[in-house]
Amino acid sequence: MSKLRFNITMTLDGYVAGPNQSIEHGLGEGAEPLHDWVVKLKSFREMHGDPGGGETGTNDGVLREAFENIGATIMGRNMFGGGPGPWGKEPWNGWWGDDPPFHTAVFVLTHHAREPLVMQGGTTFHFVTDGIKSALDQAKEAAGGKDVSLGGGASAAQQYLAAGLMDEMELHVVPLLLGGGERLLDNLKGSGVKLEAVRVIETPDVTHLKYRIVK
Amino acid sequence: MSKLRFNITMTLDGYVAGPNQSIEHGLGEGAEPLHDWVVKLKSFREMHGDPGGGETGTNDGVLREAFENIGATIMGRNMFGGGPGPWGKEPWNGWWGDDPPFHTAVFVLTHHAREPLVMQGGTTFHFVTDGIKSALDQAKEAAGGKDVSLGGGASAAQQYLAAGLMDEMELHVVPLLLGGGERLLDNLKGSGVKLEAVRVIETPDVTHLKYRIVK
Repeated sequence: MSKLRFNITMTLDGYVAGPNQSIEHGLGEGAEPLHDWVVKLKSFREMHGDPGGGETGTNDGVLREAFENIGATIMGRNMFGGGPGPWGKEPWNGWWGDDPPFHTAVFVLTHHAREPLVMQGGTTFHFVTDGIKSALDQAKEAAGGKDVSLGGGASAAQQYLAAGLMDEMELHVVPLLLGGGERLLDNLKGSGVKLEAVRVIETPDVTHLKYRIVK
Repeated sequence: MSKLRFNITMTLDGYVAGPNQSIEHGLGEGAEPLHDWVVKLKSFREMHGDPGGGETGTNDGVLREAFENIGATIMGRNMFGGGPGPWGKEPWNGWWGDDPPFHTAVFVLTHHAREPLVMQGGTTFHFVTDGIKSALDQAKEAAGGKDVSLGGGASAAQQYLAAGLMDEMELHVVPLLLGGGERLLDNLKGSGVKLEAVRVIETPDVTHLKYRIVK
């Protein structure tokens, strides 16, 4: 059965983005080192249209697996296009460029209805205004039996976790303390989410903690 | 050289205690399951004066190692005796009973001067009112070349981390989301703490993440 899978890089103190996200600092101030481990990987470069190089090895294998058998993607509106700045003033195409790295249908959770946006490389953004369950239903339909990847960010992940709609979560924990910003596992008081550890993979740069959400 | 070592159980969302700590709920409400993994271990039982049973195996080995070569202990006043309730009204002996599980000199960080308190089993509580550096100096002196264990809680750990005085930190991460309470890795903005992953050990109940603090 099609699963909703989520993977994200998190600092040891629980942050997935720094404070003051902006066009200049899409991930927030001071948060660039979070992704040092991933941008150098071969599978990351392939997703971003650069098949020519990059590291292979354990981390590359973990990342490749995380995006295997994915037929559709869901993300929050901040991940698509940033905060209230550009969005709402005029429609724009988000900050993923002409050829976004998703290569699937992408369902963007938003309050602003908009026609689908067809990009290069197989990515089409669909704007979903009727809630997370609807977005998941549409994404599973689009995935044609494959799994759905939840791209982020924190708020979308919290909503899917709290609603019991997420199946797997893999946290790529980097040994950094950000001290501020957006924490992934916030706003979950009373949600009663139960997790089961599935697998841990350790490398010097990052520790991959994979959990199954117990239904 | 004598090190300051810290190990603590933390939920996946970063909490080491629940909300509303009290005499009845020393670890805060809802936080009892944090320590399910540890209370059944043979080494835990031995520290608590019950050498007769308990689980051996991977987790027991990790716990045993965490308290090997420890010659003195440091803790915050909440860990010694709780919040403002009993403490301050009249001196009491904390909530560790007549034979506390530390079996070393214990240096309690507090603002209330008090004579040392000699307990059974080798534990003597010393009350340190002149700061964390003084407590560490006294603890290292008492440890006689062995290491010093920082017992907790979160506030004391944050102070030692931020001051660059901690050498090793092992987090026993349990797959629970507490959703509220006391977060270990808070109040560290701007502290510039740098960590290096030393070792990861995975078991179904708990994942042990060990870090060295880079000076």
